[in-house]
Amino acid sequence: MMNVKTEVLLAEQRIRNYIRETYLDYSPSLSDQSNGKAFLKLENLQVTGSFKARGSLNKVLSLSETEKAQGIVTASTGNHGLGVANALTQTGAKGTIYLPKNVAAIKANAIKSFNVPIEFYGADSLEAETKARKVAEETGQIYISPYNDEQVIGGQGTIGVELLRQLPDLDCVLVSVGGGGLIGGIAGYIKEINPKIKVIGCLPENAPVMFECLKAGKIINVPESPTLSDGTAGGLDEDSITFEICQKYIDDFILVNEQEIADGMRFVIENHRQIVEGSAGVTIAAFLKEKEKFAGKNSALIMCGGNVSFEKLQKIIHRDGGNN
Amino acid sequence: MMNVKTEVLLAEQRIRNYIRETYLDYSPSLSDQSNGKAFLKLENLQVTGSFKARGSLNKVLSLSETEKAQGIVTASTGNHGLGVANALTQTGAKGTIYLPKNVAAIKANAIKSFNVPIEFYGADSLEAETKARKVAEETGQIYISPYNDEQVIGGQGTIGVELLRQLPDLDCVLVSVGGGGLIGGIAGYIKEINPKIKVIGCLPENAPVMFECLKAGKIINVPESPTLSDGTAGGLDEDSITFEICQKYIDDFILVNEQEIADGMRFVIENHRQIVEGSAGVTIAAFLKEKEKFAGKNSALIMCGGNVSFEKLQKIIHRDGGNN
Repeated sequence: MMNVKTEVLLAEQRIRNYIRETYLDYSPSLSDQSNGKAFLKLENLQVTGSFKARGSLNKVLSLSETEKAQGIVTASTGNHGLGVANALTQTGAKGTIYLPKNVAAIKANAIKSFNVPIEFYGADSLEAETKARKVAEETGQIYISPYNDEQVIGGQGTIGVELLRQLPDLDCVLVSVGGGGLIGGIAGYIKEINPKIKVIGCLPENAPVMFECLKAGKIINVPESPTLSDGTAGGLDEDSITFEICQKYIDDFILVNEQEIADGMRFVIENHRQIVEGSAGVTIAAFLKEKEKFAGKNSALIMCGGNVSFEKLQKIIHRDGGNN
Repeated sequence: MMNVKTEVLLAEQRIRNYIRETYLDYSPSLSDQSNGKAFLKLENLQVTGSFKARGSLNKVLSLSETEKAQGIVTASTGNHGLGVANALTQTGAKGTIYLPKNVAAIKANAIKSFNVPIEFYGADSLEAETKARKVAEETGQIYISPYNDEQVIGGQGTIGVELLRQLPDLDCVLVSVGGGGLIGGIAGYIKEINPKIKVIGCLPENAPVMFECLKAGKIINVPESPTLSDGTAGGLDEDSITFEICQKYIDDFILVNEQEIADGMRFVIENHRQIVEGSAGVTIAAFLKEKEKFAGKNSALIMCGGNVSFEKLQKIIHRDGGNN
């Protein structure tokens, strides 16, 4: 298994000047409700609007001049695509981002705004990804996985470095889990520094992929339904290095339903005037669902990103009214 | 006239450890539309959700031990009330905040969350303010005005210090104008450092108080209609020291209507995933209204605060739909 802590510390050196130390906002409402102290780590305010900027930058900055000269490829219509596009622009490295032909214009435009080469290929994300991997193999270019990569995991883990600086007496961290790069990086760093800190994985009931894999003791195919937490959706690569990291470091899991996720997203708007995406709503929902667990504790909830579509936002903010 | 630059530099020393250097976000859309480079200064992310935290902290931190022992009073249901409450909590100074009896529960609760003494008095904000001033006079306590105060102006001006650090080749700053403390502090600092930088005051057509006073050459009573920009509404004290500062330093004005302000607020949600209040929407609206003026320029738009009610936010976000 990779040494996560070592990679996180290398990442901290490499990427610090390119990223924001995002604010850790005290949450009076979550604190009151739990009889503890709860804080939101606002990665929705990270450059590119999500934590993915960290991993991509660490990967690109870790490459040798030879590797960089060969070029970089990836495939992602979402936060990982934005992260890699930003990393290429910031570092001046060469690379191409593959998008499926049916990608929503708004998503393609967001990636285009970084002025990096884009190739449209295939009918869906899987076809675009398969193509990108094939191009990488055939040409010797570097394919960047959104989570199955030591440098990507290490980059995401720099959130843990910030957390321990901002809240040294941290007791619990709640993190949403998709491929496991975010929680793996944070947990693999934080728990090596202080094993008493609990790391809690938060997942949508509709797509609890890593949860089911860990329960099965191996990477399996997990059926998924659509979820507001699209950022955590999708199956795991068969050789995912995040599996073992999650197995070793995650203390507990909380699963939440779609209604709870929507309520979580609205909670952040109402109480913090922050816009977060579904995968961050999962974390709020998980905290509220088992709030008695956090009594007397200092808890940090990772608001992993803010890239929610305006349409979804309208639905979230309009349901039921709000209480002020 | 007070020396604004000197007071800003003192404020910078006093308050730096208590406030956030807020992010300066590049705006691809405003830049494209103006053929220039436009940036949003995200004071909605300042502690307390607005720039008012700066002025209040500078005032309280400038007081002698004797003055602090006498105590502080103010009256405000809005951002200034939050700013003073935060300053009292952060510094351990004693003080009381007067609120009218009819204050909305949500506003009173926001101020209460700082655990400072509150007195409910009078039928409206003016009665509460008159009472607070009277108490200050009779007891020798320090009354903190939301804008008519050298230290408050100096504190707000620390935004100018950050701006010149973040964007040294700044050409224009757009700032909404109410009492003039914010624009006075920023302009009085920035234009003494570099007189070529243009400072543009942005006001709602429904309540263009400082604009009309400057046009008249003296402080006059200006009729006002309700505006989404409630943070800039209200008449000027007869002895307002901001009047001369604005007279000296503001280069130009842009007035906008209520529809434009609402569109400005929605623009920030759609394009930056940030929630800002009406007085920040004014600045976006002003920029878009006269965007040809900003071609080839580096412009900074001050997003002065984010404390908008959830109900207003619902209306803003629901009108027309949005384009993604």
